Amino acid sequence: MNRVLWMLVLVGSGSYPSDGYCVEPTSRFAIAIHGGAGRATSSGEDQQKVLRQALTTGVEMLEAGQSSLDTVETVIRILEDSPHFNAGKGAVFNAQGTHELDATIMDGRDRSTGAVGGITTAKNPISLARKVMTDTRHVLLVAEGADKFAEQYAEDPRIQLVPNEYFSTELRKEQYERIKAQRKQADRDSMGTVGCVVLDIHGNLAAGTSTGGLSNKTFGRLGDSPIAGAGTYADNATCAVSCTGIGEDFIRNAVAYDISARMAYRQESLESAIADILSNKEHPVRGGIIAVNLLGDIVMQFNTDGMSRAAADSTGRLEIH
Amino acid sequence: MNRVLWMLVLVGSGSYPSDGYCVEPTSRFAIAIHGGAGRATSSGEDQQKVLRQALTTGVEMLEAGQSSLDTVETVIRILEDSPHFNAGKGAVFNAQGTHELDATIMDGRDRSTGAVGGITTAKNPISLARKVMTDTRHVLLVAEGADKFAEQYAEDPRIQLVPNEYFSTELRKEQYERIKAQRKQADRDSMGTVGCVVLDIHGNLAAGTSTGGLSNKTFGRLGDSPIAGAGTYADNATCAVSCTGIGEDFIRNAVAYDISARMAYRQESLESAIADILSNKEHPVRGGIIAVNLLGDIVMQFNTDGMSRAAADSTGRLEIH
Repeated sequence: MNRVLWMLVLVGSGSYPSDGYCVEPTSRFAIAIHGGAGRATSSGEDQQKVLRQALTTGVEMLEAGQSSLDTVETVIRILEDSPHFNAGKGAVFNAQGTHELDATIMDGRDRSTGAVGGITTAKNPISLARKVMTDTRHVLLVAEGADKFAEQYAEDPRIQLVPNEYFSTELRKEQYERIKAQRKQADRDSMGTVGCVVLDIHGNLAAGTSTGGLSNKTFGRLGDSPIAGAGTYADNATCAVSCTGIGEDFIRNAVAYDISARMAYRQESLESAIADILSNKEHPVRGGIIAVNLLGDIVMQFNTDGMSRAAADSTGRLEIH
Repeated sequence: MNRVLWMLVLVGSGSYPSDGYCVEPTSRFAIAIHGGAGRATSSGEDQQKVLRQALTTGVEMLEAGQSSLDTVETVIRILEDSPHFNAGKGAVFNAQGTHELDATIMDGRDRSTGAVGGITTAKNPISLARKVMTDTRHVLLVAEGADKFAEQYAEDPRIQLVPNEYFSTELRKEQYERIKAQRKQADRDSMGTVGCVVLDIHGNLAAGTSTGGLSNKTFGRLGDSPIAGAGTYADNATCAVSCTGIGEDFIRNAVAYDISARMAYRQESLESAIADILSNKEHPVRGGIIAVNLLGDIVMQFNTDGMSRAAADSTGRLEIH
């Protein structure tokens, strides 16, 4: 088939993104949050309370016209500050009995992104990831070098430094001891990675993800959360995505970017792109995904037993699972 | 347009990959190598000599029926052992005056992959990346944790540990001192990241990349080289890719995976996919890319002044630039 025919096919296909820019948006803004996918079929009462608080804050910010990027950062900070998720306070222990945290933030306007991996002292990894995006020419800083980078923000209230024990909670300590006693490897079923995707009233998308990784993980292991394209992606032309689950699956299949690519190159809808990835037998991807497109359509899917999640938009939708 | 018509369009389009599996392969095997993209228009005499040696070794292995994965690893080890590339011996200095090395290897048969980032003691980072792939459930280990992981292979001749000074050369030391004196940030024009992509006679693709990163880089900075999907990708359904250049561009645009996605979803040829990415004005990607598909077609493109590179296949093609 020649190029002209292809063009006709694309133009005539009545599918996203051809229409996406022609029809009225379904919402002025939209926001989705996840608190990790895993064995539990729904989030506990404690998690739901924090999800509600985070969602309400996000909605207020968006109603006030604040940016998707600011909203993503603020919402994730709330989840990081709560002990009920595996991000910031409440992060799991690694095999060494300490905490290593990862986070990424991405701006759909120009694909600019920043991430930190294996950090040990920044109270809010998502805010340090944003500093990497705005203040350096880099996109990913890890381990000791990233901790050193954090030190230069001693005066910045958003980059508070804490002793590593700050992140510990009794629950995570028990989980760590239990897994250690069973001599199991990293626990792949611990829920609690957090993420947020937002469409703001200015028509901009943003995404962010933050995690403590796998419980009892090998020291130095990075999953998909600090990798733009794997666990997080945002592009105004397609969608904003945040993933949770077996990080290795999301890296080797470049899942977050793949959703964007399927929309851009194959005119798949956000929903069918995600459904296809999560049901793929040849290249299994185990976990959950939240995403939003420029129309304000929210998709939250998972192939685990459950995913802690919440969503709201300017039509009044507000749900917490 | 409905799904059935789409199917007809795809089947009838006469484009890759539909044909890829029907026609005779153009080569029994194919291999391409790069030694980095940058200001120099071609590789120096020293580099060319090593490229020739690496290419010859690769061709001999492939003629003997060895796997793409073994060939990628062996070829990259040769480049790592040479002081003339920014990988292994001859790696650039970071801002702290030490060496941090990154590498990824990927198997096109099942997308399995392993990578190390910011490591300081393994003489051959590509071999340690392969151990991450084969011996762990993880795909990416970084910094001190990855160095610790290396220590368990004390008995393995492929995982030799060396003091960090082993990687130093006079040339890199001068470069480091010069950039430091100029108080410049990381030098984005230092050539020398290495990579290799291979199609073997069994029809399997593999890719690998190894680097010392940016000269005078911020301690802890990771570029695209240790990120499957960004700097390296391999999938038997599409292609094997290794990238070099401004790592940040390759991460935020998920370049290595994007090439595979364009082939799979939009039936682009390997060559046009790469040309399109390297000429994109909206999302600039500065550097070079080598790739091979299942037909044995080799593509080596760059938008820098030059790229050190070499290619050979079973039809007798053998070139070194």
